Amino acid sequence: MSTKKNFFSDNVTGAAPEILAALVAANAGDAVPYGGDPSTERLQARFGALFETEVEVFPVGTGTAANGLCTATVSAPYGAVYVSDSAHVHDNECGGAEFWSGGNARTIPVPGADGKMSAAKLAGMVDEALARPADVPPRAVSITQGTEASTVYTLSEVRAIAEVARARRLWVHMDGARLANAVARLASTPAEATWKSGVDILSFGATKNGSLAADAVVFFNRELAASMRYRRRRAGHHFSKMRFLSVQLEAYIANDLWLRNARHANLMAQRLRDGLAAIPGVSFRGPTEINFVLAAVPQPICDELVAEGYTFLRRGAPNAGVVRIVCSFDTTEKDVDELVATAKHYAGVNAQALPVR
Amino acid sequence: MSTKKNFFSDNVTGAAPEILAALVAANAGDAVPYGGDPSTERLQARFGALFETEVEVFPVGTGTAANGLCTATVSAPYGAVYVSDSAHVHDNECGGAEFWSGGNARTIPVPGADGKMSAAKLAGMVDEALARPADVPPRAVSITQGTEASTVYTLSEVRAIAEVARARRLWVHMDGARLANAVARLASTPAEATWKSGVDILSFGATKNGSLAADAVVFFNRELAASMRYRRRRAGHHFSKMRFLSVQLEAYIANDLWLRNARHANLMAQRLRDGLAAIPGVSFRGPTEINFVLAAVPQPICDELVAEGYTFLRRGAPNAGVVRIVCSFDTTEKDVDELVATAKHYAGVNAQALPVR
Amino acid sequence: MSTKKNFFSDNVTGAAPEILAALVAANAGDAVPYGGDPSTERLQARFGALFETEVEVFPVGTGTAANGLCTATVSAPYGAVYVSDSAHVHDNECGGAEFWSGGNARTIPVPGADGKMSAAKLAGMVDEALARPADVPPRAVSITQGTEASTVYTLSEVRAIAEVARARRLWVHMDGARLANAVARLASTPAEATWKSGVDILSFGATKNGSLAADAVVFFNRELAASMRYRRRRAGHHFSKMRFLSVQLEAYIANDLWLRNARHANLMAQRLRDGLAAIPGVSFRGPTEINFVLAAVPQPICDELVAEGYTFLRRGAPNAGVVRIVCSFDTTEKDVDELVATAKHYAGVNAQALPVR
Amino acid sequence: MSTKKNFFSDNVTGAAPEILAALVAANAGDAVPYGGDPSTERLQARFGALFETEVEVFPVGTGTAANGLCTATVSAPYGAVYVSDSAHVHDNECGGAEFWSGGNARTIPVPGADGKMSAAKLAGMVDEALARPADVPPRAVSITQGTEASTVYTLSEVRAIAEVARARRLWVHMDGARLANAVARLASTPAEATWKSGVDILSFGATKNGSLAADAVVFFNRELAASMRYRRRRAGHHFSKMRFLSVQLEAYIANDLWLRNARHANLMAQRLRDGLAAIPGVSFRGPTEINFVLAAVPQPICDELVAEGYTFLRRGAPNAGVVRIVCSFDTTEKDVDELVATAKHYAGVNAQALPVR
Repeated sequence: MSTKKNFFSDNVTGAAPEILAALVAANAGDAVPYGGDPSTERLQARFGALFETEVEVFPVGTGTAANGLCTATVSAPYGAVYVSDSAHVHDNECGGAEFWSGGNARTIPVPGADGKMSAAKLAGMVDEALARPADVPPRAVSITQGTEASTVYTLSEVRAIAEVARARRLWVHMDGARLANAVARLASTPAEATWKSGVDILSFGATKNGSLAADAVVFFNRELAASMRYRRRRAGHHFSKMRFLSVQLEAYIANDLWLRNARHANLMAQRLRDGLAAIPGVSFRGPTEINFVLAAVPQPICDELVAEGYTFLRRGAPNAGVVRIVCSFDTTEKDVDELVATAKHYAGVNAQALPVR
Repeated sequence: MSTKKNFFSDNVTGAAPEILAALVAANAGDAVPYGGDPSTERLQARFGALFETEVEVFPVGTGTAANGLCTATVSAPYGAVYVSDSAHVHDNECGGAEFWSGGNARTIPVPGADGKMSAAKLAGMVDEALARPADVPPRAVSITQGTEASTVYTLSEVRAIAEVARARRLWVHMDGARLANAVARLASTPAEATWKSGVDILSFGATKNGSLAADAVVFFNRELAASMRYRRRRAGHHFSKMRFLSVQLEAYIANDLWLRNARHANLMAQRLRDGLAAIPGVSFRGPTEINFVLAAVPQPICDELVAEGYTFLRRGAPNAGVVRIVCSFDTTEKDVDELVATAKHYAGVNAQALPVR
Repeated sequence: MSTKKNFFSDNVTGAAPEILAALVAANAGDAVPYGGDPSTERLQARFGALFETEVEVFPVGTGTAANGLCTATVSAPYGAVYVSDSAHVHDNECGGAEFWSGGNARTIPVPGADGKMSAAKLAGMVDEALARPADVPPRAVSITQGTEASTVYTLSEVRAIAEVARARRLWVHMDGARLANAVARLASTPAEATWKSGVDILSFGATKNGSLAADAVVFFNRELAASMRYRRRRAGHHFSKMRFLSVQLEAYIANDLWLRNARHANLMAQRLRDGLAAIPGVSFRGPTEINFVLAAVPQPICDELVAEGYTFLRRGAPNAGVVRIVCSFDTTEKDVDELVATAKHYAGVNAQALPVR
Repeated sequence: MSTKKNFFSDNVTGAAPEILAALVAANAGDAVPYGGDPSTERLQARFGALFETEVEVFPVGTGTAANGLCTATVSAPYGAVYVSDSAHVHDNECGGAEFWSGGNARTIPVPGADGKMSAAKLAGMVDEALARPADVPPRAVSITQGTEASTVYTLSEVRAIAEVARARRLWVHMDGARLANAVARLASTPAEATWKSGVDILSFGATKNGSLAADAVVFFNRELAASMRYRRRRAGHHFSKMRFLSVQLEAYIANDLWLRNARHANLMAQRLRDGLAAIPGVSFRGPTEINFVLAAVPQPICDELVAEGYTFLRRGAPNAGVVRIVCSFDTTEKDVDELVATAKHYAGVNAQALPVR
């Protein structure tokens, strides 16, 4: 195992210390199973306070489960969920929407730029579908916030999409696998970022930003929650020892841990970008608004970084040299600086020496 | 919260200390996500050694997920799974088999005694169904080992069911949510209890006997595993930080922890039964072969136990006085003796004093 | 092929002459596809008049499709449909409810006598299920009218079941594959037999009583119809040349054809029963309230009837001698009398001679 | 109702006289239900002779049912079916693939020209998907023959797609809703057009070319047929009075009726195109290889044709003037010439007079 920091994804880390501590503390004594424990009961109020409105919160084991439960709910009894064309729910969950809905949902990608769907194109595609009685009827839109392209929808962009949806009686889901990073970037309140901008139901991510294995579905529109307890149970995400999920989520939002972690990861990505920008031949694919950098890095430099023990995702055609470098809550300035120095060394920038550990 | 030991179920406990320690140790450093980490890779060999044959192991978050994945697999492309009439997979998972299979599976309860299905009745029902072309075709049988009635199928009983299945080209699934308790009771090897007796695919339970939240699907018939990685992923049980499930399972089977825990829990249940047997008016519903007691306890005694802070499951019609009292890996002799003494006190047995904590 | 009348089922017949004539007449000229034709449009008003209330009617190809669409609709988003333990929808449609609902529905058989479910047992089972949060939640009840046992629920029996359902917020579906036979027997209005007794949604059968291949779903509760056009289309029951289904249904209910056909079939079954009753050793399994007779006929007589070219369904264990003999709209008195005379001949009744054709 | 020939689609017609006659003839007498009748049994041999190989044939009510059954079969246990981007199965069947497969199938459109998918693009997309373990795995390709663009894949084009599929272990489905028109155009044998070019399973269309309501699934790869009888039954396409579907199909292929009908319809479309080509301002959207014409017709002429009672499909944006004009087996030269003359009249071509009926 390399001792280098792993930049492959934000799920390569362990849990944040505060969350691991909460888990260990929760281990003592017995608890009513299936969510009858005190921490799960507290969670409703904690999330209510966080979002400044009454909500229903359902802890689940993974973001894919959260997204599957949400898409099944908003597409019921049957219909299409419009997503951005890089959405995780569309091409990274093995057809989760179809599975969770029993074949009643279809995800339809909407083109856009920088990982965001265009509200105008959404409107056009939905209107066209509504005019075709033999096609899958539109039921919902799903916004990935922050996006798979390291960008963030502005509040007005979210509202514009939500307005398109409302006008056509579609539900609005937000896939917030990286919601913390987006809220940190927006400097908005969690409420503004979600229900105040028109979101009905949220996949609240925590795993990528500090939890061990816990995410949640949050209902702002509480009528939608009616079938949730059954759906979650049959899918095996109604954990018997639920307290172990709930305390992770509780610790995650306590004392702004989620935003502190996200701000830090975002900052490290910016630092990384600034460092790489000084290397001739490096260019960027879109902005770096959250915690990762998409960059075209000359192939030889890429190869040397890998040879030095660095790990990151290479995208697109083999040897295209486009990489995704992801920072996490536990990425340090030193981690970033070492990667940048190593790249510079192999790029021959200013006789930069290889960093020494 | 009562300070009394909770006898409601074996999922009221935290994790065993060895498992929590493994989890904490696993938190350091980065790891390849989605099962590319060393502990997940080791798991294949560890389970192979445990079962004395090459297997494929897939960690999942819950027993309901394990059962759902198994029933979907063995019923494909479509068909019926025969289960005992008290099977968890039938009436305690919100229709999980139907859900996981996309409506392609149906569970059909087979009558029996003491929580076990009768091989003869199974044969009769399957043959009848095979003769009806418009009914759901039989595809598999699912054996709950140990049962929901605190009993254990003998090896020859498992083999008899497996032979009925083989002769009719049905797959054999074992729901081993309490496999450890059953193997401990049988004093067989894990191999004898499973594939050597005809089992193709196993829900391997750990949560009820010491893990925090980790169970697994084990394929003895590895051809059946082909679609598993997709099925698990879309259902949100392909955890990104998979190492945290794998190390729990690794610690669970290391040094016979799983069997030591189970033997202890079984012993405590036997001690509990012996203690209760001395109380006039108490009778038992079937044998106590694993870690819980099903007993008819006079209503006033029940009520006093509850008033004293004890928790257990009351079954059947309100106030029928039939209770399920479950022991866990962490139930102590003192816990059991206190409960018995309290019951005796209120039963007026030998002027038994109330135990003092 | 035997020239004897076939008593196997009421689906061995061709179409009634009136219906075939309507089909032939409809063949001339072009028509707007997918139900935009005049006969489909007329159908709404025709059924509205028949049932004395505004309804929505959806022609489909088969009774299994009608039942599948209905169970999927009433179980949405997910839940259990309670049926009688001999219900076609439960054991004769290959798991249709699960299929049509995408794994969201389960059928649960309720015990009863003479093919009818008991309202009291229904209430008990539903209440028990409602108390178990991890079981499939009750959503609907499905009444087969007339039953698979040649009986008919009285109006008060239907109402009693509907009241149990209403009190627990369950929808009421009626599987009316033999509704005509039941209404003929009840001498009620179609309205009284259905929505006035609490039925929300109806599988309206025609195939067994005179159509070539056309049944329908009728919504009394029109809110339930919202998702129907999509559900029917994707299942391939939204026929492009819809007029050919609609004119069958139109002809079927015109001039009371459906009730005349059913009355005749019922009468023939009664005549058959009366005839068989005179044969020593023949006994009946329950009443004969609609168009078929369930009888225990001495095995030698059964065998001779088959040898003479008669066809009927033998039920239960091989050679148990229990047979189902079904009359149709086109069964003649001569057909019945010949069968009875043949049976009497082989039974040695009054030196009855074999009938001559 | 207009007395003008309806050019909206090839499903606006009644049945061909030969098929109606077969239906009427089949009405006499009783028949074993659910396909035990002689005509259904004959059908296997008839289709075997037609395709010069042993096949399994399953009559169904509609083309959507045939496609749904086929996509569910070839995608099992779970996966993606690659289709052309104008495929009926993708956007005209309300998500049928997802429905029939219980959420296990997804259709993925492959770009191409003239309604055909590109084999090269197919290969690229499949290879890319195979490299992404978290995406829906490719399982099959579905070729629409003839296409929704009035074109026909050449035999070598079909073979090229089938080779891409074979090399990647994908099944090959052919949606032959207009197979007759394609075979007529190709002047190949039915065998060459299908299994000899690599097709495993076929939706055999008849409704658009002369049947009243009958299509079929034809298995060349008979192993794939194992689950078919269950799948068809539960979907309500296993008609009890199956003979009425079978005799339609029998008459359809007898004496080359299907090819004669198709040749005629194709010829009429060619005649129509030739006629329209003489009108200034009319242009065509791709070739006219089967039985319909896609044309850009000046809006005023379009409007006048509609005012005169003509019906056809207007595609794309409102008033774009692109129309689809479909000929059927019963479209006459007079029908075509009248339409052309009417168009010419309003286009002011050569002082063409309005045709008189």
